[in-house]
Amino acid sequence: MSERATTAAMLAIGDELLSGRTKDKNIGHLAEVLTLAGIDLKEVRIVGDETEMIAEALNALRARYDFVFTSGGIGPTHDDITADAVGAAFGLPVDEHPEAVALLSAHYARREMPFTPARRRMTRTPQGASLIENKVSAAPGFRVENVFVMAGVPSVFQAMMAEVLPLLPAGEPLKSASVVSHAGEGDIGDALTAIARAHENVVIGSYPRFDGERFSTEILVRSRDEAALNAAVEAVRAMLAALDPR
Amino acid sequence: MSERATTAAMLAIGDELLSGRTKDKNIGHLAEVLTLAGIDLKEVRIVGDETEMIAEALNALRARYDFVFTSGGIGPTHDDITADAVGAAFGLPVDEHPEAVALLSAHYARREMPFTPARRRMTRTPQGASLIENKVSAAPGFRVENVFVMAGVPSVFQAMMAEVLPLLPAGEPLKSASVVSHAGEGDIGDALTAIARAHENVVIGSYPRFDGERFSTEILVRSRDEAALNAAVEAVRAMLAALDPR
Repeated sequence: MSERATTAAMLAIGDELLSGRTKDKNIGHLAEVLTLAGIDLKEVRIVGDETEMIAEALNALRARYDFVFTSGGIGPTHDDITADAVGAAFGLPVDEHPEAVALLSAHYARREMPFTPARRRMTRTPQGASLIENKVSAAPGFRVENVFVMAGVPSVFQAMMAEVLPLLPAGEPLKSASVVSHAGEGDIGDALTAIARAHENVVIGSYPRFDGERFSTEILVRSRDEAALNAAVEAVRAMLAALDPR
Repeated sequence: MSERATTAAMLAIGDELLSGRTKDKNIGHLAEVLTLAGIDLKEVRIVGDETEMIAEALNALRARYDFVFTSGGIGPTHDDITADAVGAAFGLPVDEHPEAVALLSAHYARREMPFTPARRRMTRTPQGASLIENKVSAAPGFRVENVFVMAGVPSVFQAMMAEVLPLLPAGEPLKSASVVSHAGEGDIGDALTAIARAHENVVIGSYPRFDGERFSTEILVRSRDEAALNAAVEAVRAMLAALDPR
């Protein structure tokens, strides 16, 4: 593709994702909204609630990609260590963010709930962070440079991503078209390889499905160049028609 | 925990996972079966269909953890490059595996289907690999040293994992017990921190849920030491009872 696209990575944080107790729902959501925004999600990592692992993964990803999005570990309990780990990654002190303190103290006062030390934990950010609004449950996420730190609860993660998306550069979305065939991948793989080689500026993916009895194949063509996309799709259709003239 | 547990990582491979087109189902499955087997899944990475990215991630993970499990990219089409990437990671030549050729040529002969060059691609492994049986759709996975390379289609991934599990060392499974409370994390976070500090050899996780209206909290206590587990669970129950005497 001609212009370099904006790139992104995700770091999902939480022991519960690695024990199988919780099935992650945020990776798929982030992948979808970034793709629609024309930003390429290039890598995802999942790590547990360990400061060093989080900081190391974050440093690897933030150096390599334009943006990093994290999920999880920003609640009020002892296992919520993401703010400290992000601070460690950036070498920044972590302290209560004045805006977050004002926000949450007002929030709990309105609800006549005590602003406990545990709840105050949720106001802690690395120095200089800007807040990400949480329209679902008030406790904010935060941004440090190219890293957006968000909640793990899917409804909250999604609400925070809705705030973050307008801050990202608008990319040229990938256009895509797919063709489904009852031919197996093994029947069309050679012809598809030839088509992929002959068409520049497109990415051709081949995705087998298995319904318990037989395979079918979805051929997905993606490109930022509409003419190239259409030419490749036509070539795929012609190949399939030659295979099965019905 | 007293004895060092066996550790594992997963590398999920495929552009479709990063575009949001396919929601991964293999990470959750692997997490569950490893947890039941007493093996700690410590890290997961998802990368696209790019040889260098796959090889780099694989080398980082296989050096660090006892076992690595990969999913995806072992089919018959041009975008199935996992075997080559694994070969690159290990510095091993990749060629048709004689057992796999025998297996698949017999398989397609029985079905009166041509053994096309595309299908022959599925017999390629790094030199010296051993095969992993595929009871669903024949084309095998393979193992090189501590790396198990498996399919991305969930039914096939699961069938391959069923073959692999008996090959892994039997660990002492983590025991776990959970207590659900309608108290918010913010109400119990301070007391929970004190409990976590006072109890060694247990991991206490706190997991908020949000049903669209209010939060509840699941407190999950895990340990390989049953006495330590029970003591921590009792402490959590006593703390919650003191909070809400109903």
